[in-house]
Amino acid sequence: MKQLLQISVQEATLRINKIQSLMAEQRIDAILISDNANKFYTSGRVFNGYTYIPAKGQEIYFVRRPVDLTGNNLEYIHKPENIIEILQKNNITEPSTLGIELDLAPYSMVQRIAKIFSNSTIANASGILRQARSVKSKFEIEQLKTAGIKHTETYSQIKSIYSPNITDLEFQVEIERLSRLGGCLGQFRISGDSMEIYMGNVICGENADAPSPYDFAMGGAGIHPSLPVGCNGTTIKPGMAIMVDVNGNYTGYTTDMSRVFSVGTLDKLSIKAHNCSLRICHELSSMGKPGIEAKLLYNKAIEIVTEEGLDHLFMGHRQKAGFIGHGVGIEINELPVIAPRSRDILEVGNVIALEPKFVIPGVGAVGIENTYVVTDNGMECITHAPEEIISLD
Amino acid sequence: MKQLLQISVQEATLRINKIQSLMAEQRIDAILISDNANKFYTSGRVFNGYTYIPAKGQEIYFVRRPVDLTGNNLEYIHKPENIIEILQKNNITEPSTLGIELDLAPYSMVQRIAKIFSNSTIANASGILRQARSVKSKFEIEQLKTAGIKHTETYSQIKSIYSPNITDLEFQVEIERLSRLGGCLGQFRISGDSMEIYMGNVICGENADAPSPYDFAMGGAGIHPSLPVGCNGTTIKPGMAIMVDVNGNYTGYTTDMSRVFSVGTLDKLSIKAHNCSLRICHELSSMGKPGIEAKLLYNKAIEIVTEEGLDHLFMGHRQKAGFIGHGVGIEINELPVIAPRSRDILEVGNVIALEPKFVIPGVGAVGIENTYVVTDNGMECITHAPEEIISLD
Repeated sequence: MKQLLQISVQEATLRINKIQSLMAEQRIDAILISDNANKFYTSGRVFNGYTYIPAKGQEIYFVRRPVDLTGNNLEYIHKPENIIEILQKNNITEPSTLGIELDLAPYSMVQRIAKIFSNSTIANASGILRQARSVKSKFEIEQLKTAGIKHTETYSQIKSIYSPNITDLEFQVEIERLSRLGGCLGQFRISGDSMEIYMGNVICGENADAPSPYDFAMGGAGIHPSLPVGCNGTTIKPGMAIMVDVNGNYTGYTTDMSRVFSVGTLDKLSIKAHNCSLRICHELSSMGKPGIEAKLLYNKAIEIVTEEGLDHLFMGHRQKAGFIGHGVGIEINELPVIAPRSRDILEVGNVIALEPKFVIPGVGAVGIENTYVVTDNGMECITHAPEEIISLD
Repeated sequence: MKQLLQISVQEATLRINKIQSLMAEQRIDAILISDNANKFYTSGRVFNGYTYIPAKGQEIYFVRRPVDLTGNNLEYIHKPENIIEILQKNNITEPSTLGIELDLAPYSMVQRIAKIFSNSTIANASGILRQARSVKSKFEIEQLKTAGIKHTETYSQIKSIYSPNITDLEFQVEIERLSRLGGCLGQFRISGDSMEIYMGNVICGENADAPSPYDFAMGGAGIHPSLPVGCNGTTIKPGMAIMVDVNGNYTGYTTDMSRVFSVGTLDKLSIKAHNCSLRICHELSSMGKPGIEAKLLYNKAIEIVTEEGLDHLFMGHRQKAGFIGHGVGIEINELPVIAPRSRDILEVGNVIALEPKFVIPGVGAVGIENTYVVTDNGMECITHAPEEIISLD
């Protein structure tokens, strides 16, 4: 038998309490969690089933599979209909308002749950979970720092795998291998299922300017129209910028880090834009203190690129991304969002990836991406690879 | 500019017509597709947006990103609310029944669409798309056959990467690399977002008997509780069976193939069970003709394993899978399902993976998995790697 809970009881309680206090604000009497990322958040493991959180008291883990778990607050079920039977058996009142992750849960599943909880009004619990997860605990920050260290170790080996006339795809495959041998879990979580990326992206040359289906600064055409993003088989040539943005999921928590490599020296514009990205990261990370509005960080970045005359290349050229940074953690797209209309306000414990990037047509993409922890003194960088353009030859 | 349509007009028309004839049966006046797999099916590419299919006449592709597409029946939108404006502008009547993929689309998204199509009744279109996609066109079968050939080429190189005392994880990483260098797209599609697997699984020894969160014959504990499936770092030792089940997505269409490798010779029980799996595949593939009920294939497999006294190890030991085969195509879990309560009936053009596998406690998993095309003469195998247990030393 295996322990259900893969985090300490204290850590689980801290997270459940945080969710419960948000539930109280929104007058939700219970939440039934079905999303894998949120199940992992509430238990430290992924299982087939649901986490049930009442307004007060203990959470209950309703598990279908795996069949060999043990632990407190664990109830095995065959189907969701069993949940209500077990609650009744334990004299737990049916909630008058039941929260479900309506932004994630398929319509048919919600209908089924609503039928089971026929005396409950259904409410959207997606926001509560996003908000709870946006402020990381001490333990979660440790997981992210460990990921940052391993992510950096992988990036430090990238130079060793370059050989002349390698394609961006071959280069990416070798980086994937380095990442995996270094402990990267491979799969990383993206909230919602419409964004599909494999491991991350290696993009160079003209391909950086190919629009993708997603809200990315640089997309890349990809190698197949079923997965139209990322490297496209371009041979890496002198004068190209090679942007490496491969995921940092080494601990179930993902850091996000991008670095630029080059063969030979890049042109002046690319170097200028890259240095501008460093400037933005440094200015924003000292500006990013608790209480500041996320959109002010975005505005500051725009102010800097406009001052430097680089706004037409910033965050994409033919297709532009609508943000310069985003929360990371269990998923790659968490709160807060650093975007012009963001209503988020920075808090101690936010973990944010800043990615001020530029697309230089014909050359590639330049700029860096780092992951930062918001502290009382500003944003502490936890992705440590050298920030300058790294020469491959 | 890039062409939106990445399949021929004839191929797209064939697929749209198939969907429309199913819509007529179910009295659905239009379908609005939002799922990536279904957008790929209707256009040959993934994009951010929707495919709109009226009961009669031309489909319309409503695209948000990428911004550089061109082609017929293409309308750019900023948000879903634009769809109804464009339909009205083109004098297209609002459907009285609008189909949406309710088994896949998040509840909040469906609510938003329902508000936009305020004069329409919402119906579930998931089944129509599953059914349409379960019978492959000539072109789709070619894509699957190409995938099968490349998949087989990758498997033929697996022996070359073995070295003594390698772990299952290291072995898997090298197989991932071989796959990717051979043209595997890496990512493969799974319908619904609750099943999370990276590239596929390599499982050996006791780990084959570790229950997973999914309905698998063998799960594996995985290397982290956030992704608790697959290899767990076991060192590959003589006497172990090593099951390799790594995805075959080389064309946007995925073949499914598993093979068993060993160091030294396996015990008699494992060899017997492996041979029983071959027997099941061979008997079922000649039995699998158009018109036969899928559940009869399942029953036949159970009959064979019971006759051979292997039923307690069949399709898992501590945790058993509830099926022995499944449709494959754009996704790994399509129709028909070969399971005891399946209502599916085989048709010409179904593409089915059969995976009669056994878990031998302490040894690993044995048996094979092949992908077959249903023809008038039975099931034609399109995954060609040698079926016997392959010795690594």
